[in-house]
Amino acid sequence: MAAYCPRYQRAIEMIGRRWSGAILRALITGTTHFADLARTVPGMSDRLLSERLKELEAEGLVVRTVTPSTPVRIEYTLTPMGQALLTVVESIAGWAETYLEVEPAAT
Amino acid sequence: MAAYCPRYQRAIEMIGRRWSGAILRALITGTTHFADLARTVPGMSDRLLSERLKELEAEGLVVRTVTPSTPVRIEYTLTPMGQALLTVVESIAGWAETYLEVEPAAT
Repeated sequence: MAAYCPRYQRAIEMIGRRWSGAILRALITGTTHFADLARTVPGMSDRLLSERLKELEAEGLVVRTVTPSTPVRIEYTLTPMGQALLTVVESIAGWAETYLEVEPAAT
Repeated sequence: MAAYCPRYQRAIEMIGRRWSGAILRALITGTTHFADLARTVPGMSDRLLSERLKELEAEGLVVRTVTPSTPVRIEYTLTPMGQALLTVVESIAGWAETYLEVEPAAT
């Protein structure tokens, strides 16, 4: 493994951007609707979620599907490239569960 | 896997902070000296490297060892908790190699 790799750097910046990791985790666990995604991450504004979803779409990780029903149904799902992040999310989650302590919720 | 986990969120923020992922990768591949770490990441200033190393030390991922030789030798190595990130770094690197294209260097 080389000490530095631009692709690794780009990947970590995509995943590490504020809330992107949490949104990807929520999508991986099967959350597809905007309102449900918004509820998943405490403290994330709708505006930021919308921005992040657009970025993830532009990066080829997420697909936005619009069903022309009444009301219109909008769903966000992972592309195969996005689904492949499951191993990354799992390895981070496993490390966090082993090494990080649970902090009391901020009051 | 829960849709949201504060420990996962903390882990991803630790790793995803600008240059932290690259510094961790350099440490994992056996780079220990400040000057070598600084050379590893193109575009990272010494001041920022110093700041990130202090953060990684405070988070328990990195140990700073000072050998009182002439000149003084300072080495940075990973703690067991830091070394355990190898699986995370490898999973991100593997994903990046599979899904991200090599971009031409910025001119």
